Amino acid sequence: MNSRSHQDPTEPRADKAGIRRRNLSLVLRTVHDSGEITRAGVAARVGLTRAAVSSLVEQLLARGLLIESGKTFSGQAGRPGTVLRAARTGPAGLGVELNVDYVAVCVADLTGAARMRRTVPLDNRALAPVEVLRRAATVAARVLDEAAAADLRPIGVRLALPGLVSRGTVQHAPNLGWNRVDADTLFARALTAARPAGAPALPVGSDNEANVAALAELWFGDLAGIHTFLHVTGETGVGGAIVLDGELLRGAHGFAGEIGHLPVVPEGPRCRCGSHGCLERYAGLPALLRAAGAPGLDALVRRAEERDQRTLAALDQAGRMLGVALAGAVNLLDPQAVVLGGGYPRLFRWLAPAASAELADRVVSGLWNPARTRLRPATMTADAARGAAALVLREVLADPLAYGRD
Amino acid sequence: MNSRSHQDPTEPRADKAGIRRRNLSLVLRTVHDSGEITRAGVAARVGLTRAAVSSLVEQLLARGLLIESGKTFSGQAGRPGTVLRAARTGPAGLGVELNVDYVAVCVADLTGAARMRRTVPLDNRALAPVEVLRRAATVAARVLDEAAAADLRPIGVRLALPGLVSRGTVQHAPNLGWNRVDADTLFARALTAARPAGAPALPVGSDNEANVAALAELWFGDLAGIHTFLHVTGETGVGGAIVLDGELLRGAHGFAGEIGHLPVVPEGPRCRCGSHGCLERYAGLPALLRAAGAPGLDALVRRAEERDQRTLAALDQAGRMLGVALAGAVNLLDPQAVVLGGGYPRLFRWLAPAASAELADRVVSGLWNPARTRLRPATMTADAARGAAALVLREVLADPLAYGRD
Repeated sequence: MNSRSHQDPTEPRADKAGIRRRNLSLVLRTVHDSGEITRAGVAARVGLTRAAVSSLVEQLLARGLLIESGKTFSGQAGRPGTVLRAARTGPAGLGVELNVDYVAVCVADLTGAARMRRTVPLDNRALAPVEVLRRAATVAARVLDEAAAADLRPIGVRLALPGLVSRGTVQHAPNLGWNRVDADTLFARALTAARPAGAPALPVGSDNEANVAALAELWFGDLAGIHTFLHVTGETGVGGAIVLDGELLRGAHGFAGEIGHLPVVPEGPRCRCGSHGCLERYAGLPALLRAAGAPGLDALVRRAEERDQRTLAALDQAGRMLGVALAGAVNLLDPQAVVLGGGYPRLFRWLAPAASAELADRVVSGLWNPARTRLRPATMTADAARGAAALVLREVLADPLAYGRD
Repeated sequence: MNSRSHQDPTEPRADKAGIRRRNLSLVLRTVHDSGEITRAGVAARVGLTRAAVSSLVEQLLARGLLIESGKTFSGQAGRPGTVLRAARTGPAGLGVELNVDYVAVCVADLTGAARMRRTVPLDNRALAPVEVLRRAATVAARVLDEAAAADLRPIGVRLALPGLVSRGTVQHAPNLGWNRVDADTLFARALTAARPAGAPALPVGSDNEANVAALAELWFGDLAGIHTFLHVTGETGVGGAIVLDGELLRGAHGFAGEIGHLPVVPEGPRCRCGSHGCLERYAGLPALLRAAGAPGLDALVRRAEERDQRTLAALDQAGRMLGVALAGAVNLLDPQAVVLGGGYPRLFRWLAPAASAELADRVVSGLWNPARTRLRPATMTADAARGAAALVLREVLADPLAYGRD
């Protein structure tokens, strides 16, 4: 969102209507990214005149995409201005995270705030894809009712799925056992069936869960200036995503970031993906629970807190393997930080020492000093469902005219 | 070189002189990238009027940065135009590749062509850094004499070094045994000493050898539309560089691409970098020669051609380890291709089968089909010394006024 080009002459067909659309987007994004800001502040940032900004702001207020409040900044020269914010009603995004053993649904408003959330345990491996998507749609339909009651109007749905996603199809999701599942179409159909007759159909898109979680961390996490990082989510699978200068690296086919299938032991045990010795076989939650003899994540955390030796050894070993794979990734990518998300933040204090030791030994630049906090847990409120919901709202930010009230 | 912005209003201080500088650069780059092109062709590409382009071309011709010839394109409508090309005399770049056992020097002209080359075997590990740089400067001084005789005028030097380079200093080059060597300053001093008194001092910069080799492949190789790739050079070390959409990924500290230190066997043998089981310990040329019992690369190639079993087994094993590391990198980056450079092209037909088999097994997207030629040898004429020389010339392309004849 760094573009300041309001009259770029290199795009020859930039007619007046096109320039207005882009300037509306520029102003809305500036308010959105700032949280709250005066008209004068917007003008200073975008390089348009105050008069032009005021006119654009009026249009966005009229369309219900901005709100203003009487609050003023003290210490500013001149007549105190009212403060602008993105609207908390109106266009919203619906995010649906579909993982191996749960479905999480979130509605985010235009500020990015998670306004409704619902997480339902669901054994998605035991069910056919069409049934999984049907149940997820049922949860989503209930959340849509709540959103309507709060005067929020989701304009689309983004699914976040633990697998390789391209053009609306889950090509391969080994931990779900899905191959070539047309998730967008199946979910859209199920959502229409789950909603009252006559409810408008919502466009559905999908994305890789790890990608969406990384964007959520970038947008809503406590990264404090970090914009180039590797984000690793520990669930049944180990997902990964790479953010370079604030942009997701998607790769040539949209499949970048699959650190879970980085080989850590070439002749290691067979993985669901068909390969051998993948990181996931050592640091995925099922492998970790098995090594610790724990029935679930809660039990694992409790036993670790009680300093159970088998549990601590299993966490140390998983942290070590994570560190080996991360060292390879850090040598390749030279990121500012590595963020551990999914189930890892709850385990961070036991995984991090061994992982950091491997990183310190193996990162060739010598820059991986364990004393620096470059290995860090993800922010708990920056989850994939919220990220997916926020992704939907990027369309509103890009073209406000298409979405506001008429 | 995609920028077409000749009058970008978002840079407020774009005065007339600044616009002229940028347009001169735009026209020179367009001719450079095209090889040969008419004035009308330039005008069509850059979106300026023919009159404006003609005026800019005259200035570049006057400064000796462009040449024109009477050759015309047949089949074109209208009066046949003369063809423009970048100059083959005048500003040039000097590239110096400093590897463990040789020094290669290249002068490239403004078209990118390698006009002078000299490679000298040198055991750089046996000598102090200052002595290595002194000997390299002696070779460079001789090549500069040849360049002057051909009416080429190098405007700067770029060193390509097998190590972590930042701000002119080699921070860490385990295979040379260098730590914190101020290579730029030492080489500049040695070059001045090796040249006739009164010769103008040349600015010296340095870069990682693998990065420069990848740029050379991008600029001068047979990539046929590939712009997102991983480039791996097999020398004493195994270097790597990542090109994304035609741009080098440098990473947060300039150290991205170090695939040679991706761990392939966590508990494997100790590496010069201090870690264990790095790819380099299996697929670096010394490891390969040791496993094959061969005294050098020529002997290795000859024995492989004679189908010596120990040699073939060593190449198969190195190819397998290379494939394991590459699979991890491909899962992370999802590139269009992997290019093997340095000493690997001569070994490609023996390394590739095992490496491709590992890639096919381990790349989770299933997109790595060995039948596709996504693992490919580097182009032999696209070496690091030429890439380094071409890097120097980027400055001329960016600001022709600063370099042409007055």
